[in-house]
This record gives sequence, structure tokens and C-alpha cells, in this order.
Amino acid sequence: MAEASYDPSNIFAKILRGEIPSHRVYEDDAVVAFMDVMPQGLGHTLVVPKAQSRNLLDADPSTLGPLFTVVKQVALAVKKAFGADGVTVLQFNEPASGQTVYHLHVHVIPRFEGIALKPHTGQMEKPEVLAENAAKIRAVLNG
Amino acid sequence: MAEASYDPSNIFAKILRGEIPSHRVYEDDAVVAFMDVMPQGLGHTLVVPKAQSRNLLDADPSTLGPLFTVVKQVALAVKKAFGADGVTVLQFNEPASGQTVYHLHVHVIPRFEGIALKPHTGQMEKPEVLAENAAKIRAVLNG
Repeated sequence: MAEASYDPSNIFAKILRGEIPSHRVYEDDAVVAFMDVMPQGLGHTLVVPKAQSRNLLDADPSTLGPLFTVVKQVALAVKKAFGADGVTVLQFNEPASGQTVYHLHVHVIPRFEGIALKPHTGQMEKPEVLAENAAKIRAVLNG
Repeated sequence: MAEASYDPSNIFAKILRGEIPSHRVYEDDAVVAFMDVMPQGLGHTLVVPKAQSRNLLDADPSTLGPLFTVVKQVALAVKKAFGADGVTVLQFNEPASGQTVYHLHVHVIPRFEGIALKPHTGQMEKPEVLAENAAKIRAVLNG
């Protein structure tokens, strides 16, 4: 079965181009990280390569080392920023797995003992809460 | 909070050393992939770096490009081998996130429309079923 091709009008492509705002915590030549606006838990952050692919299945392997190096850095940062007990890393490919935006992205979610993840597409978080959480993560990454 | 250090007696270290058996689908100098014995779904495969780390949080960044390049290859292979609609990639860090074996590993799980994942630590699959599924994945990877 042929997959659909990359659609540059997806919301993360618009965020990468700066056409819509995001609460960024990290950016380098290849990778951007910003807050998920429908967090499954406190401090839920997305790590996104600038290179265009629909998901992992059509990603250029050369993008994966830089991408997951930032995933590691962000995982350590969110764990410290929120005093988390652990970190869950999720990456979805195609609708059957729960993918809703078709630009490759990795979910990095701080975890706390006894607190389950909220549903994947839940409530929008308030912008001021996202801004405050992003500032906490940036303080760790830049400190 | 200091994390526990790497314990070389964990079950995946024993699998990597060949001290206990596994249903392998892939191996190179840096990475091994084998069937999860308590699958969350048909064809659930684990991708594991040979380098020792407890999880992503203490992983050497140089291991991540080769690791996730194999994750991509295995994701494509399991999708084709089982005619799946999508693929879910999961990576857990510390007990609060559901990690149960403390050697870095990535879950690659074929997904089918309308079929939810089974619990993370469920029933042991029959060895003959794991062997058959591993053969299907190897046939795609080697074809």
C-alpha cells in the first residue's frame, strides 16, 4: 500500500516556518522542540526535525541521530525541570497508531509515580501555562 | 536525584551475550532486534543497542543514529510483514514510565485499525508463534 506523501500545509510545517506561534524550548540547524498544546501530562514536549517527512517510515536516516540526540537532551531537561520520576517517549506512524499531524515528531512526556497519561487528543492547555512550562525547560537547557 | 547505574545482569544484556535465547530478526555491529516475549500486539519487536545504557537518559548520543535507523527499518519491515496499517514506537525511561528492563530498548509495534494495544506486561507468547513471526520479519528484511 502506498502511503500518502508529505503535505507542507500541516500544522508543524507552519510552526517550523513561523507562520503560527509555538512555545519553543530548543532550536538548532536540524531540530526544533516546542510544547504540545494538548499535553498528555505536565511538560509534554514535541521534538521535530526541520527536514520534511510524513513520519519515521519515510524519514531520511541521516536526520535520526540529530533528532534523537535532542530527544535525549529534552528528556533530561523536562525530568529535571518538573522533578519527574521518569520520561515516556512516543512516536506514532499513520492513523492506526494515533498519528494526527503528518510531519515526523517525537513526544517527550515527563512521568510521575501513580499519574497516568491523559488521552492523546484532549484539552487545549492555556497559553500562559505553556509559556511558563517552556520557560522552565529552557532554564534547564540553557543553564 | 541520581539514577541507579547500569546492571549487566539485566535480561537484555543476557540476550545480547547469548546467555538466554531470543527470536532475533536483525543484528549488526551496534544493534540487535528480537521479538518481545510479552507482545502488546502482533509482531511486537524490540530494537536494542549493544552499547550499555540503562535507558535513553544515560545513552551515548553516538549510539542513537544507528539505533533509530534500525528502528525505522524494523518499523517498515513489521508493517509489511503483517500488513499493518501503522506502527507505534515506544521508549520508556524509569519505572514511572513503565520501564521494566534496564537496558535501553525501543518498542516497535505494528498497529491495525480498531485494535488497541494489549497491556505492557501481559501474557507470554508461545515460542512457536514468536519463531513464526520472527521468520516473517526476517523474510522482509532480507528480501
